[in-house]
Amino acid sequence: MKPASNKREWPLSKVYGLLEPGPVLLLTTAHQGRANVMTQSWHTLLEFEPPLVGCVVSGLGFSFTALRLTKQCVLNIPTAELATQVVGCGNVSGAGFDKFSEFGLTPEPASQVAAPLIQQCYANLECRVVDTRLKNRYNFFVLEVVKAWVDPACKAPRTLHHCGYGVFRVAGETLTLPSRMP
Amino acid sequence: MKPASNKREWPLSKVYGLLEPGPVLLLTTAHQGRANVMTQSWHTLLEFEPPLVGCVVSGLGFSFTALRLTKQCVLNIPTAELATQVVGCGNVSGAGFDKFSEFGLTPEPASQVAAPLIQQCYANLECRVVDTRLKNRYNFFVLEVVKAWVDPACKAPRTLHHCGYGVFRVAGETLTLPSRMP
Repeated sequence: MKPASNKREWPLSKVYGLLEPGPVLLLTTAHQGRANVMTQSWHTLLEFEPPLVGCVVSGLGFSFTALRLTKQCVLNIPTAELATQVVGCGNVSGAGFDKFSEFGLTPEPASQVAAPLIQQCYANLECRVVDTRLKNRYNFFVLEVVKAWVDPACKAPRTLHHCGYGVFRVAGETLTLPSRMP
Repeated sequence: MKPASNKREWPLSKVYGLLEPGPVLLLTTAHQGRANVMTQSWHTLLEFEPPLVGCVVSGLGFSFTALRLTKQCVLNIPTAELATQVVGCGNVSGAGFDKFSEFGLTPEPASQVAAPLIQQCYANLECRVVDTRLKNRYNFFVLEVVKAWVDPACKAPRTLHHCGYGVFRVAGETLTLPSRMP
């Protein structure tokens, strides 16, 4: 199933290029009939294809429990237009609070997982948890991206790169050098 | 010992703000009397303080062996001025090849580890390996930053954010929003 918004399916072999630059993410989960969203900056690629992503989710909140029990989430990549929402979702708890409606974020059904896509994000990566060996020590989950969506109209996404306490650098000019390496 | 270049010691409690934006790194190691440098984009913060960094180092090269055996490295953060060197260090093997002299990178002695700092990088993080449980499965090392150096003159570093095959986004404008979260 394709999301209602104007997204195109993205090849899993190219997912690394979305995450390798280190953008702030909005991580969505769904558990016991409700969805939540949290702001997430601690992630790394672990493998090209299938794309594996290591991701730290604080052990104190709704998202950690949902991720642990459902083993599913979506990594949504916002751009600078969503900076207020990114900070807002990082500052409040999802317990007893609907961050989607509060921050004007539109959930859309995903294709492979129960957690929703965020329509306003230019890219959405549907993920399943495949390794939890470092969960107890670092709150570190290994995710496999099983489906990826990208807005084809967004050519040079102004992704947000967090430096602490609401300070972000916005992805700026594009440099292209000859290289043999992915 | 302070490096010869114009760097200031950086508090370990603030190291996360250097790595969280996801910059491309130059990772240096030293082993059996020689130093090497590799380009590295797959890393994530795991803890604020002491700063812990998870980092993927390909199992095929000099750096992997050096890191495995010496349990020491330096994460050097380059800016856009070093884009050619970043691509060059990612495209050639360090076996039988001195990337420092080839690419005009100046090694400086570090304070806590045998691997060198790269003088031309605006920040340098001296690291020790503290956990190798995911080394065999993902080439993933957990590093503790034990000393950090930053050039105080570099206020808005134009860090490089890799998107694949020599394409980088350069860190651009700075956004500052009120936030309670580090």
